Formats: sequence, C-alpha cells, structure tokens
Amino acid sequence: MAQSPVLRPGHVVLRVLDLEAAVVHYRDRLGLQEIERDGQGRVYLKGWDEQDWFSVVLREADRPGMDSMAFKVISAAALDSLEKDLNAYGCKTARLAAGELSHCGERVRFTLPTGHAIDLYAQKDYMGNGLGRVNPDPWLEGIKGMQAQRFDHCLLYGADLDATIKVLTEVLKFDLTEKVVDGDFVIAAFLSCSNKAHDIAFVRHAEDNKFHHASFLIGTWEEVLRAADIISMHEISLDLGPTRHGITRGRTIYFFDPSGNRNEVFCGDYTWYPDHQPITWTADQIGRAIFYHDRKLNENFLNVVT
Amino acid sequence: MAQSPVLRPGHVVLRVLDLEAAVVHYRDRLGLQEIERDGQGRVYLKGWDEQDWFSVVLREADRPGMDSMAFKVISAAALDSLEKDLNAYGCKTARLAAGELSHCGERVRFTLPTGHAIDLYAQKDYMGNGLGRVNPDPWLEGIKGMQAQRFDHCLLYGADLDATIKVLTEVLKFDLTEKVVDGDFVIAAFLSCSNKAHDIAFVRHAEDNKFHHASFLIGTWEEVLRAADIISMHEISLDLGPTRHGITRGRTIYFFDPSGNRNEVFCGDYTWYPDHQPITWTADQIGRAIFYHDRKLNENFLNVVT
Amino acid sequence: MAQSPVLRPGHVVLRVLDLEAAVVHYRDRLGLQEIERDGQGRVYLKGWDEQDWFSVVLREADRPGMDSMAFKVISAAALDSLEKDLNAYGCKTARLAAGELSHCGERVRFTLPTGHAIDLYAQKDYMGNGLGRVNPDPWLEGIKGMQAQRFDHCLLYGADLDATIKVLTEVLKFDLTEKVVDGDFVIAAFLSCSNKAHDIAFVRHAEDNKFHHASFLIGTWEEVLRAADIISMHEISLDLGPTRHGITRGRTIYFFDPSGNRNEVFCGDYTWYPDHQPITWTADQIGRAIFYHDRKLNENFLNVVT
Amino acid sequence: MAQSPVLRPGHVVLRVLDLEAAVVHYRDRLGLQEIERDGQGRVYLKGWDEQDWFSVVLREADRPGMDSMAFKVISAAALDSLEKDLNAYGCKTARLAAGELSHCGERVRFTLPTGHAIDLYAQKDYMGNGLGRVNPDPWLEGIKGMQAQRFDHCLLYGADLDATIKVLTEVLKFDLTEKVVDGDFVIAAFLSCSNKAHDIAFVRHAEDNKFHHASFLIGTWEEVLRAADIISMHEISLDLGPTRHGITRGRTIYFFDPSGNRNEVFCGDYTWYPDHQPITWTADQIGRAIFYHDRKLNENFLNVVT
Repeated sequence: MAQSPVLRPGHVVLRVLDLEAAVVHYRDRLGLQEIERDGQGRVYLKGWDEQDWFSVVLREADRPGMDSMAFKVISAAALDSLEKDLNAYGCKTARLAAGELSHCGERVRFTLPTGHAIDLYAQKDYMGNGLGRVNPDPWLEGIKGMQAQRFDHCLLYGADLDATIKVLTEVLKFDLTEKVVDGDFVIAAFLSCSNKAHDIAFVRHAEDNKFHHASFLIGTWEEVLRAADIISMHEISLDLGPTRHGITRGRTIYFFDPSGNRNEVFCGDYTWYPDHQPITWTADQIGRAIFYHDRKLNENFLNVVT
Repeated sequence: MAQSPVLRPGHVVLRVLDLEAAVVHYRDRLGLQEIERDGQGRVYLKGWDEQDWFSVVLREADRPGMDSMAFKVISAAALDSLEKDLNAYGCKTARLAAGELSHCGERVRFTLPTGHAIDLYAQKDYMGNGLGRVNPDPWLEGIKGMQAQRFDHCLLYGADLDATIKVLTEVLKFDLTEKVVDGDFVIAAFLSCSNKAHDIAFVRHAEDNKFHHASFLIGTWEEVLRAADIISMHEISLDLGPTRHGITRGRTIYFFDPSGNRNEVFCGDYTWYPDHQPITWTADQIGRAIFYHDRKLNENFLNVVT
Repeated sequence: MAQSPVLRPGHVVLRVLDLEAAVVHYRDRLGLQEIERDGQGRVYLKGWDEQDWFSVVLREADRPGMDSMAFKVISAAALDSLEKDLNAYGCKTARLAAGELSHCGERVRFTLPTGHAIDLYAQKDYMGNGLGRVNPDPWLEGIKGMQAQRFDHCLLYGADLDATIKVLTEVLKFDLTEKVVDGDFVIAAFLSCSNKAHDIAFVRHAEDNKFHHASFLIGTWEEVLRAADIISMHEISLDLGPTRHGITRGRTIYFFDPSGNRNEVFCGDYTWYPDHQPITWTADQIGRAIFYHDRKLNENFLNVVT
Repeated sequence: MAQSPVLRPGHVVLRVLDLEAAVVHYRDRLGLQEIERDGQGRVYLKGWDEQDWFSVVLREADRPGMDSMAFKVISAAALDSLEKDLNAYGCKTARLAAGELSHCGERVRFTLPTGHAIDLYAQKDYMGNGLGRVNPDPWLEGIKGMQAQRFDHCLLYGADLDATIKVLTEVLKFDLTEKVVDGDFVIAAFLSCSNKAHDIAFVRHAEDNKFHHASFLIGTWEEVLRAADIISMHEISLDLGPTRHGITRGRTIYFFDPSGNRNEVFCGDYTWYPDHQPITWTADQIGRAIFYHDRKLNENFLNVVT
C-alpha cells in the first residue's frame, strides 16, 4: 500500500497503416480533437476534456500496434527519482529529448519485462479543455462522434506478467487492483496509479510487446449505446459490446480502428483506494470476469492483438 | 502540487433529534446499511460499496449538526507524521482512543479555523461490501431507497476560510480544486485529497462550526431522478434539485433529514489531477456556480445550516 | 371509451416578435430542422423524426402566442365526417384552402370554447425523417442542440374547460386521461387521441385563448439534463426543471423562446389505452401533480402565458 | 391505413416444465407480480404497471411453448363484430367461456395460418397498478428483479407469413410496420394495432405454431443493463444482448426461462402512426435489422424456438 508519484496515462503512440483513415477514425468517430501534425507527419490528438497538449499520437507504419505508452509523473524531481529507482532495480533507462514529441518535455524510457516501451515525463504543454478555468460550462458543444473525454488506459499482452507487475508495483508504486489467476499463475493483471480501477492492464501471452487495446473514457451507459450505434452507422469493425466487465465493473464496447488496432470506450468503473484488497478472479470464471453478461470469451478478444 | 497522505473522507458524526426517525431516513431512504449500535446508543451505518466498518455515525442530541468529520490516512506512520506537522504548524491535536468509535483505531483530532472538528485515523476494521473479493458481482441486490454507495464529502460553513484552506493545503496536502471569489475574497472553496473533484468544501459564513450538508455518491443521473421520486413518495423535505452544479459538474439533489440536517446524493464529477489548475468562479456567477440550471441561489441553500 | 379518427398533433403556428432570433432558438437550441420559408415570410420547421413536411410554423407578429394548433386526421373521409359532427354539435367550422400553409392540404378550422383555433387536416406532404424506409439507422447524426424528435402537444389556458373537454371527447373522441379537480370543479384537463398520455391539455384561466407551452419529445432523462445544460450555456430563460410531472409521469424542463413563448422538452410518459380509468388529482395536491419533486407551483407556471 | 378495434396484447399462456422454477423466474427475476393460482394449478401474473387482472399465465406441461396469445378489444360489440368478420373471411372461431381463465371474460379463439391460437376478449377484471387513480406516485416501490412494467408482444415462428399478415391487417386492422424481405418474399413481419412499433411479430419458419419469445417492457437502457446484470447474477441462460434492434429501434436483451422459453426485456421503440410508410429491411441486411450492433444473427436466435 503506497501512493504513486505517477499521475496518469499521458499518451499512447500508435502505429497505423493509413494515416488519413486513422485520423477520420480517431477524430470523427471517437471524437478526439486533432491538435497538430509534426515534421515527421505524426498526428497529435486529445480528448476534449484533457488539459495537456495531446494524449494520442498516430504514426504511419507498415504494421499496426503500439510504439509506446507514456505516464505523466508529478514533478521533475519525481522523474529523476524514478529513473534512479528503475536503474537501481535493474531496469535500463534512456532519456528522450524534450520536443521529440511536440510540446512534450524530456521522457525517461524503459522496457517492461513484457516488452513494452514505457515513457515517463513530468512536463507537457498546457492546452486546456476549451472551457477555460473561470466560470466554465460543464461540457463542450460540437464534439464529434463518441465524444471520448480522455485517453484512459491500455491493455497489453506479453509473457512475463510477474516481472512486469513487480516493477510497476515495487518501483513505480502502482497498486494491483484486480487479477485473474489459475492457482498461483497470474493470467491477467490490472494496475492503478490513482483512484481509478485501472491505469494499465496486462494479459499473459506467448508473444511479447503486443497491444490489445487503448481505452477512452466516455460519460454514461447511454453514451456506450450511442458509441455502438455510431460503430454500426459507419461500418466500424465491432469486437464485442455493449456489455459490462466483471473486472472493474466498467460498461464497455470494443471495436477496431481501420488498421486493426483495438479501441475501447467505456464508463463507470469504481473508485480505487490503496487500502483496498485486490480482487481475484479465478480462471474458471474468466468469461464472467471479462464479459460479465456473455460469461464466455470470444476468440477475437483472446487472440487478435497488434 | 503534491499528493496527500490522506486517502478519503472516512466518516461523519451527525447529531439528530430523534434517533429512530433518523435511522429510518438514513437506512431506508438513503439506503445505507445499519451496521451496529454502541453502548452510548450511537448508530453506525455505511454505504453498500464501502469496505470499512462504517462511514456515518448518528448521535441523538438536542440540536442537529455535525460533531466531527474524519479522514482515513494511508498509514500509522502518516498519522504520526501529520500530527507532528499539525503541531509544528500551530494546530493543537488530541488523541482519541481506539475503540472510542466502535471498530475504529486511534484518531488524531484538530479543529479547523472555521471551528470544525476534524479527525484523522489510519485504521478501521474491514467489513467488505458484501460482494467478496473473489469473482464479485458488480453490485449488491436488495439495497433500499436511493442506494447510496458511499459517504463522499461534507460542505461546512464558517468564517475564516483562508486559514482553513491554508492548513488543509499546506499541512494535509489537499489541492484547492475550485473556488468562488469576489475579487481576492474567497467566498467558497472546494478541496480534494484524491482524484475526486472534492473531498471537503467550505462556504464563508459569519457563524463558525456550521454544517451545510453531507453528500453521498449514487451511480447515475437516472438514480438522481429515482432519489427525487423517493423524496416525494416519502414526503422528505426537498431543498433543491434534480439539477447540476457548475462547480464539480455534479448531478445532484439536496434534501433534509428529519432533524434538519441537509443531505445530498449526487453523481458524476470529473477526475481531478494535482497538476490541474484550480477553477475559479466569480461572485457575479455564483448562482450558475452552485445551481447551473437555475443560475440563482435559493435562500435555503445560503442560510439554512445546522 | 372510443377510438379517435384524430391521429396526432400535426403542427402549431406560433407568433414571435423577432423571426431570426426565433429561428436560432427553434433550430439551433431545440434542434428542429428548418424546412422552408413561405411568401408571407413564415418559417416551417420539423423535428428530425417527423415524417410530414413541418410541425412548427413561426410567424412574426407584434405579440407572442399561438395562432392555431392543428391535428392530422386519419383520412379525407374522416375530415368530412368530423366537420359534419362539429356542425351538428353546434361548432361552426371554416375551410382553409390547401396550400395556405405550404405543403399542407385543406384544413377544417373551429374554435374551442376556451377560444383557441383548432385545425383538422388529412393531408400533408411527406418529407421523411432523413433515414429512409429501407434499412434505416436508428437516429440521424448531426442534429443540433436538444435534438427534439417531434412536436408533441400544447398546454392551453382558457375559461370554459368543461365545454372544451366536452367537444374534444364527444365529437373528436379524445379520451380525458388526467384531470385536476377542486371537488367537481375541473382546474386542468389532459386529453389524448392516441396511446400517449396527452396530445393536448388545458388549465382554467380567466382570459381565453392563451398559450402556455408547446412541448417537444426528446429521448431520455439524460437528454433532459443535456437540454438543461444547453439552456444555461446559451442563456435561455428557464422556467423550471429538470423535474418530473406527477401528471403523465413525464420527465421535463420548461423554458422560454426569445419572444416569451414557453417551450417544454420532455420524455417518458406512460402508454394510455382507452379502457383505462382517468387519473384524478385533487386541488390540494396540485403542486405534486404538476411538479412532482418541488410539490409546489412556481408563480411563473400559473401566470405567465402568451 | 385504418385504426384497429384491438387495443393491445392482453396476455400470453405459456407452457413450462417446472412450475415453481418458472414462478421464481417470472416473479423474482422479471419482476412480475404473482396474482393468483387457479383450480387447474395455472399461475397468473402481471407487470406492475398493468391495470387488468393478469397478463401472463403459466401452465405446467411436458414441453415448453405458447398455448395462446390474447388481445383485448375495445368493446363487446367490437368482439362480436370481429368474430363475424373472421368468419366471413373464412376463419373459424370458437367461444371460450368467461371464467375459463380466472377473471377474464368470454374469448373468441381463432388459429392463424402460422398455426398459433389467438384469443380476442373484451373484458378482464380490473386490478389496478397499485398506485391508485387519485394522486398517484409515478412508480411502485418494492418491485423485484428487472421490474418489468407490462407484457408487450410476442414473436412467433411459422410457415405461411403472407396469409397471417393478411388476416391481421385485413380483418383485425393491424398495420404492417416493418418487414424483412428477400425480393418479394417476406421473411419477417412486425405488426401493430396501436401507436407501438409492434404488438406481434412473425418470422418465417418451416414448422408451424412455434414460439420465439414473449417480450416485456422496461423503462430505460439503464434498466436493460440492470436486467443483464441480474441475468448473470442468477445464472440465467442469456441469448443475446444488451443491444439494439435495427427493427423498431428497441434496446433489448434476450434470455431463457428455466423451461427454455425465450424472454425479452426491452425499452425505447418509436411512436407508430397508421399514416406512416412501413419500413423494409432487405435480406442482405437481416443481421443489422435484428441485432444492429453485431450485424449478424446468432444461431440461437434463428433456430431455438419452443
């Protein structure tokens, strides 16, 4: 039980096969705001209710997937301290220069035992949510599509879950909030650096560094229905939903971007506190854990990753 | 910008004129669970989704109001450290013995400049939310009335807001999330020790140590309507609502317990992070700040406190 | 107990002081679609989910209020028959030529004992709801503001409620669904020609031919909140809400157009069947009848009419 | 385009394998009220918001399915008239004595070309919805489970859809609201005798007199989620959902009673008027027509009938 110097998932860098198709998807269907494009052609977007400059970066590439996921930490001092702690723990780190991603400060990169590149940073330029900080309205008119409010978390697939959980909890001071186990064998793990039920999650998988989905917060179960309708109106590839997760209690729908990267929009998890006991799901109940209503997994969910 | 060793509002001790009428209200209308009664006749209740032993204590007395509000801190070491910090800051503290409140560990009490007794504690016995921590269902069947999930925050009235904000932010490391100001004069302040938009709030008022309301979390705007219907079905005294707050964006309804203590049930504030800039409301917009739809305050809200 | 040859409220003709301000209100805030303007400068609008050509006509005038309310009947034969029945009952009627309102067939006009002009018609050109009738999506993207689906009913004020109820039930075969009474004295009456809880309603009032509000259907209680937010964002004059009616169970909010005509958006009444017994509200419960949560009337609601 | 003397689906008589298990399901999970049991051991239930004595009858038998579905007509005169019209059309009818079903008046029975027994009746004793007809509250506290408000419609499977549509539209004056076609070949048909999008529906199927589901109305999409959760909490066999229908726009979930009879709870279709054009779904879009989000049929839905 501890409190993490890590504030939140700050951004995810995704590889897409066709940049313009991806922009249409993330901007017009998910409802993110396109903020800018950089000299390398990367596109920066954010959810309307995010304060920092961007939370999604799209990079055109010849295969889909995730380049890296980044977390904002509470201060430059915390960033230095975490770097030292990582090194002391045996994790190599590298510094990525401020400005390498537009409007983002220096990043400390390390690789999780599951093979995923994780960046930590303490500074990103302020953009605001368009409502101002003086007498703000509660929401912004004119947002498109599913009206995603913010990038929320990723689910990643890789082999050595135990070592990944260990570095996240022991060095970065995340809490393990929920896990799926077969006896002592951990099949899936959900971790939080905040009062959210999860800020990052993992499923055990033979191949390392695989990306299952990036998740975006929407407001209500009614907005989950609206998202589902939009998915059908625009012939977006549906994975599963609307439904509820047993894990985190979230109300959710899964679908794919045009490159095959999975997205989730969801609402309504619970408030996590670090003095809470983690929740355990047993392997025989994994269907109910993941899809509470169907009580069985679809093949896609287990096997389709990028 | 800092992170607080304070986890959350842990409980509130309320004075009620008629204990049995109060129990009917908090148990059957709000939907709290009655946990136990102690040797002094005090009644302990909790929201169904709370893990600790209790979050509301009702004490029969000849005038309504709040005896004290308590916060759980992250560890016994943090409790000792906060006590020293409070003393060093010039706040006297007193230790209340473990067990003085049933199933609650030792408490450190101090008095805010606004006159309110605040307790800090690191330990309370575990009760659980009735769902277990292995393969839990997402909610509990059979909860009554408004189905309040947890005690969420209090709004308190008193004179010296500036000094109260100072001790909460400088010693307890709360964030000031929103404030209402007339020039430099702070009329109201909302403070968080977590990712919630508020864990405690204050309005400036001539008389010290006054209680405005205790707030309880419910799930959705539809449950706010349900609460409103229950209020009318049971002839509960309504203050105002259903409506939305400008401050915190919460969807809300206010009403009174049989002793005249104000309650709120609400849902749907935003996620606060300590790197966010506080929101400022100007005095000319105070109506919109408090009741976003009516855009004016009702007299009750300003003047009726216990 | 009978079934009415009247299908539904087909349109309302409203007088507005400033046509362009009114168009902004009804089009961009209520979310009606502007269909056309005629040679007299009248503006025709419809809710997105209405099939016929228009349901609201705005006419610029030097005082606000309602010119007429019109009902579509099931056939030309029914129109002729109703005209005869009205005449036989002692109601004078007049024929208004096809095309007098654009794309609307011949209308039979009569005046209710409460002084309101009511038109009946059997034909209006088909516009469609934009989704088509082959493999339609469930809703239309890009609708503005409150996204009103259709014009639903009017509440009218006038003196002789008893005679108005009599002609509507005996000649037009409406059902009286709910009434507010002081002993035998009818204060308010709600009437249906369909399975809706009301298609038209009346409140007793000294002055005849007064207009209380035109009501528009929206989808859910969440959309009522959305409407309330839009009202505040655009500084629209609020009357009351969000709240629930005791009468009809509707979830509702009232506000004013820029000319002072009252509008309602609401959802969620019950299904009426002609074999149901009418509901009676007693005068001592009129507050609860109208505003179920506040349980009292605001002065505006009783006295502000156009 | 006509108006039907048929008011609504009045009840359905279902065969169940284990009566007590069925009662637990329909009473405690769907939330119907158990009204009485008759001398034959049949159990009568109703939705809380229904006014008449019962709407579901459970009869223990050695195979599941539907004995008959009944419609209430507007008057005894209409019943006689419909009987004559049916006979004139070539449909044989039989009279079932008043009281054969408890508290239900005389019934006129005929068999649809698809093999289903349909009863018409004009009288059933009044039970009320528990709220009274004077100053009623908007809903009843203490209703269990999914809180089904009323029996709404059935979907039936059989061979000769064309002839069934013909008798329902030509004799009983139902409207065909939606249909699924493969060229001129009608695969499925949805019919209304009211302002609802459907009061009965049919899918073409080799075997006659098969029962697909009985549907019950609930209030909102949030209640669909609640129903889905209850289904999982009580290990009820899920067919599909929560989802939306393309046809009727309904928000829905399907599941099975302990005997294998399919149930639906749903909310939110549109208002049908007899001057509306029917909606056509083409066979290539049948997935989207039935399950708007999945856009494909599950095998169960097509093949599992009782």
